[in-house]
Amino acid sequence: MRGDARPARADYGRYLRIQTRWADNDVYGHVNNVVYYSYFDTVINRVLVGGGLDPIEGSVIGLCVESGCQFVAPARYPEELDAGLRVTKLGRTSVRYEVGIFRADEDALCAYGHFVHVFVDRATRRPAPLPEGIRAALAGLLREG
Amino acid sequence: MRGDARPARADYGRYLRIQTRWADNDVYGHVNNVVYYSYFDTVINRVLVGGGLDPIEGSVIGLCVESGCQFVAPARYPEELDAGLRVTKLGRTSVRYEVGIFRADEDALCAYGHFVHVFVDRATRRPAPLPEGIRAALAGLLREG
Amino acid sequence: MRGDARPARADYGRYLRIQTRWADNDVYGHVNNVVYYSYFDTVINRVLVGGGLDPIEGSVIGLCVESGCQFVAPARYPEELDAGLRVTKLGRTSVRYEVGIFRADEDALCAYGHFVHVFVDRATRRPAPLPEGIRAALAGLLREG
Amino acid sequence: MRGDARPARADYGRYLRIQTRWADNDVYGHVNNVVYYSYFDTVINRVLVGGGLDPIEGSVIGLCVESGCQFVAPARYPEELDAGLRVTKLGRTSVRYEVGIFRADEDALCAYGHFVHVFVDRATRRPAPLPEGIRAALAGLLREG
Repeated sequence: MRGDARPARADYGRYLRIQTRWADNDVYGHVNNVVYYSYFDTVINRVLVGGGLDPIEGSVIGLCVESGCQFVAPARYPEELDAGLRVTKLGRTSVRYEVGIFRADEDALCAYGHFVHVFVDRATRRPAPLPEGIRAALAGLLREG
Repeated sequence: MRGDARPARADYGRYLRIQTRWADNDVYGHVNNVVYYSYFDTVINRVLVGGGLDPIEGSVIGLCVESGCQFVAPARYPEELDAGLRVTKLGRTSVRYEVGIFRADEDALCAYGHFVHVFVDRATRRPAPLPEGIRAALAGLLREG
Repeated sequence: MRGDARPARADYGRYLRIQTRWADNDVYGHVNNVVYYSYFDTVINRVLVGGGLDPIEGSVIGLCVESGCQFVAPARYPEELDAGLRVTKLGRTSVRYEVGIFRADEDALCAYGHFVHVFVDRATRRPAPLPEGIRAALAGLLREG
Repeated sequence: MRGDARPARADYGRYLRIQTRWADNDVYGHVNNVVYYSYFDTVINRVLVGGGLDPIEGSVIGLCVESGCQFVAPARYPEELDAGLRVTKLGRTSVRYEVGIFRADEDALCAYGHFVHVFVDRATRRPAPLPEGIRAALAGLLREG
């Protein structure tokens, strides 16, 4: 995934199966560009919750400060997709993720992008160190960018 | 499911596993009421597409004329759900579906509701008979309401 | 609005202008049935916030226990709509709202429905009396059902 | 808007008022990152439809091939926003837009990003020249990137 090279399945360390929904399709009959970002949120936060993130009560939360996506080939409901996740920067208070959306069980890439979280104190919204459980959950997904 | 009686798993003839998404949760930390209706759309249209509905090119499409939902217990991301479907009226040009949303692999009911499709000619939007493939796909799900 | 009679503009005491969005349209080129419920949520909570509801910190929140909608005529992006709101039951811990969606500045009705909130303590999720500010904001919208 | 410089209101040639919705807020109580992209889609397509784009029947449609966003400050329901739009590249078959999301009637920037459309023939999905009406509508929004 150097430069503009398109990612392959092996570039991601974790996958989540994504079900498309009727409402994901826009008037052109394929999954709307916006919806891919909700897939990003879904696979990323699944890992964070697995590492101990408590979105309701936890004192540290992750805020998105940047995201981006390249759209390669259309997906559509009804279809299942695989969202691959890797971490390309694991800082003290921030994380850069890369996500690839593939057709289920296929090498065909639909879209790929990135997403940057800054972790903050829920009350003050000032940057805060990643909790250890979350850091550990993400460390296993760290790959060279 | 007579009167206000809450439905049970055995009341539905077909199930679709539903993945919740990060964006399904609202500010109260559970799946927003609106989102359940997108689950309804998703399980219903999965069956229709299986019966030959072509949302992009087909000459007959199903338009929702009525829906409703009772919310019993909150669901939240990340969690998986099972959407059960049955048909309680299979008319010449319309269908009444009932959907139950349960926690995955559990009897616990989160919400249940109904949804009525009128099938119409795509161009004229006048009522049109259900295509045979769709009728056949739905007939197997017909239960007493 | 007795029985199945369709509501008119004069049946609602408050209006909110609604902008449709690109993503509101589904593959059939009109606003998806699910999206109308997000219009309901939007007009209702606007009034509640005006009456003092604090969705983030407030100790009492409103949970939807039931909703329903009749779809009369399609709307589509780009178009503006007017969401009319009235209250038909104002109980100690619950409220029944009715919403009508009209084309902007026209009498033409697109959809109408109802929505029931039970107010609960945020922590215990047990029913709680409506806060006075909210009750006052809703009392002005009370009409015979 | 050179390099990473944050855009100002004067950098955009057209504005659309955006209403936030209840469902725009995520569990952290502010507009979810994903939703900003639906604001992008909404302001961009408003201009395209004004220039003659027919999403339902038109022979040429715009497909998103790339988008990205920087999130500067949170917005939340209920609040209104202004989406500013400019065009920084107007090619034969593609357009690059830049969008800035500001608090309504204020200079305070919430988020800014870009969005690239490739125009294609609806049937073949091969690149197609921008229709003249659309080109004319966009030409007035062209600014140096």
